[in-house]
Amino acid sequence: MSENMPTVTMIGGGQLARMTHQAAIALGQGLRVLASSPADPAAAVSADVVIGSHDDLDDLRRAADGAIALTFDHEGVPLEHLQALEAEGVTVLPPAKALRFAQDKMAMRLKLSELGLPVPAFVDLAGPRDDARERFVAFGEQHGWAVVLKAVRGGYDGRGVWLIDDRAAGLAAFDRAAEDASTTLMAEQKVAMRRELSAMIGRSPYGQGAAWPVVETVQRHGQCAVVIAPAPGLAEAVAERAQQMALTLAAELGVVGVMAMELFETLDGELLVNELAMRPHNSGHWTMDGAVTSQFEQHLRAVLDYPLGDTAARSEAVVMANILGAQEAPTISMDERLHHLMARMPDAKVHLYGKGERPDRKIGHVNIVGRPGESDVRVRERAESAAHWMSHAAWIDGAGNATGTTERDEHDGRVRRKA
Amino acid sequence: MSENMPTVTMIGGGQLARMTHQAAIALGQGLRVLASSPADPAAAVSADVVIGSHDDLDDLRRAADGAIALTFDHEGVPLEHLQALEAEGVTVLPPAKALRFAQDKMAMRLKLSELGLPVPAFVDLAGPRDDARERFVAFGEQHGWAVVLKAVRGGYDGRGVWLIDDRAAGLAAFDRAAEDASTTLMAEQKVAMRRELSAMIGRSPYGQGAAWPVVETVQRHGQCAVVIAPAPGLAEAVAERAQQMALTLAAELGVVGVMAMELFETLDGELLVNELAMRPHNSGHWTMDGAVTSQFEQHLRAVLDYPLGDTAARSEAVVMANILGAQEAPTISMDERLHHLMARMPDAKVHLYGKGERPDRKIGHVNIVGRPGESDVRVRERAESAAHWMSHAAWIDGAGNATGTTERDEHDGRVRRKA
Repeated sequence: MSENMPTVTMIGGGQLARMTHQAAIALGQGLRVLASSPADPAAAVSADVVIGSHDDLDDLRRAADGAIALTFDHEGVPLEHLQALEAEGVTVLPPAKALRFAQDKMAMRLKLSELGLPVPAFVDLAGPRDDARERFVAFGEQHGWAVVLKAVRGGYDGRGVWLIDDRAAGLAAFDRAAEDASTTLMAEQKVAMRRELSAMIGRSPYGQGAAWPVVETVQRHGQCAVVIAPAPGLAEAVAERAQQMALTLAAELGVVGVMAMELFETLDGELLVNELAMRPHNSGHWTMDGAVTSQFEQHLRAVLDYPLGDTAARSEAVVMANILGAQEAPTISMDERLHHLMARMPDAKVHLYGKGERPDRKIGHVNIVGRPGESDVRVRERAESAAHWMSHAAWIDGAGNATGTTERDEHDGRVRRKA
Repeated sequence: MSENMPTVTMIGGGQLARMTHQAAIALGQGLRVLASSPADPAAAVSADVVIGSHDDLDDLRRAADGAIALTFDHEGVPLEHLQALEAEGVTVLPPAKALRFAQDKMAMRLKLSELGLPVPAFVDLAGPRDDARERFVAFGEQHGWAVVLKAVRGGYDGRGVWLIDDRAAGLAAFDRAAEDASTTLMAEQKVAMRRELSAMIGRSPYGQGAAWPVVETVQRHGQCAVVIAPAPGLAEAVAERAQQMALTLAAELGVVGVMAMELFETLDGELLVNELAMRPHNSGHWTMDGAVTSQFEQHLRAVLDYPLGDTAARSEAVVMANILGAQEAPTISMDERLHHLMARMPDAKVHLYGKGERPDRKIGHVNIVGRPGESDVRVRERAESAAHWMSHAAWIDGAGNATGTTERDEHDGRVRRKA
């Protein structure tokens, strides 16, 4: 792309690639993306787009040609393709040997156990269905029926995950999920938890590691809705343990790039590892405006084997809230909603992904960087209100109740706060 | 570009358009650029590029087609083309009636005088050469020969500007400049000044205005080298006067977008207007990392008639230093220099433009956002050291002297600070 500067290829044309492209521009580069369509969020804004499928080895080869490294905005590339590319000399980062643990929840659970990292009790449900069903029942009887049934591969944002509260529901879910013979299952104990955390780190090929402050993530309908940085009231020792667990695991697996370790904080203050993502992650979007180095820049720095950037937060409280497609798209257009939000909150940092609105689809996010002295509670209220407005064209207060309006003046056409 | 979101076209494919594209991505858009080549800094990173000339009305029409507004990363588009486009219904922002003052230094001086804004003494040197020469001599005799001779149009970054200290040099410069019959000249008094300032503002079509903190700009070889935000030790009343002057002028001229008003602070603390730019400007690059809203986002917000963003600084001291092409490009590649800088300063925010290195060419910039309690002097030292390194592959200290090194270890290939 630019004279003498390297080109990184990202497989996937979604919002993560879109935002990585923004970061690549500052580094004197541009991101090459392998996208399924020119209208994909990243393909729509990058000059260097390869149209193709991440399932097709030849498409992957075309995308890798001339790039210094191949990286990913999702975990969906078949492992055998990555191994083939590596055998052909392509630099795949994170490497296949690491990425397989992000692709396979069962392999990851086993690896975490092997490394002595704390995980919920779990059971492998691979193999013949009747045997698996027996193991599932035995697991439920032993640990109680507060259980999470999961597809080992391909689940995200609540897909491929079933929350179970009793034996009957558990068996029904198992039988339904097992109807698809291609789905391998596992189950784990549903943890009685205080909240969910995420420890996000970057790691370079050389082994340099850098951790951002540990954040609290709030899930709704099985997907991330809000992220509060740093996690309010988290004891420093616990935060450090979470960072250390993420750095240790990344080193053990040979991860290169950024990695999110999603954690449960149990009622008694223990940490359990939930999921891993070896790519920029929703729980790191706050870093775009709230940290010295964003997760997208850090991912590129790591993949390029550049020294990693400063992970310090720019404020005592930063909150990210996802803009999700509403059940019914508001009659007020996205463009007009953006007007209103800007009128009401001149410091809101909005990131839109250029995606059509579909129910519960992540179509953007809002970051609010707390003002000096502003409490995390207030920053969160503002971020949630902003995101709710962008999703639903309705304002809410901190308790989720409808509140004042922003209106377009009939006489002068201007948007003004009416609250 | 994106569903239901508007598209803005920027005329010019340089670094200002490149960085505006970064800002457009966050707003759910992409910037369309009219560039002279696909290798131009912005064209290399945008998916929506029209190749053509800003001098060609048909190319301008092609670039404007379907866009909500046409804006600029330079002042070079012929005014008659802009007027033609406006007559055809294209929304040109800033409008031709405003932009002509940014294109014509003499018209601007006259307008500023008419509005009662303080400017250095000046003389119009248009018309027959002998008459103009007489007026020039008379001006020199009256105000002294510390004079700046300027081409009325087309000069930037020190081009089209001649600094004169005595009569003989003045006449020689005049005669040389006047050889090109197409060059219209003016002259003004060289001001005995303390320093140069820049008041940067944004203004929307509705008339909303927003001013960033007034900054100090340090010029070297006739072009901006360093920007310190806010201007150290500037009295609040003076800063407010500068902001008010910029906002007033923008309102009087009907400017839409961001505008930089370059000012002289005289030895006795008065302000004089030097130059105007009605576009993102080098003196506003610090806002990318150092302010809540960057000048590039603000320019788009203004052009789109969105409410303007918060202009507050994120730190008590932010310094931008330009990366300029060295007289002889260092043997260490730009990519490798970036490695070293990142090893030495993990918090340096680097912005590279994807341009080849040529002497004194602006090829990037570095922003340093001061840490809590860090003095502006120290922040400036770090920014200058970083930019000097990126230009020359040599480290300097605050006094400009060579200092410690960063080296690549022969054994493990890693860059480490050796200072």
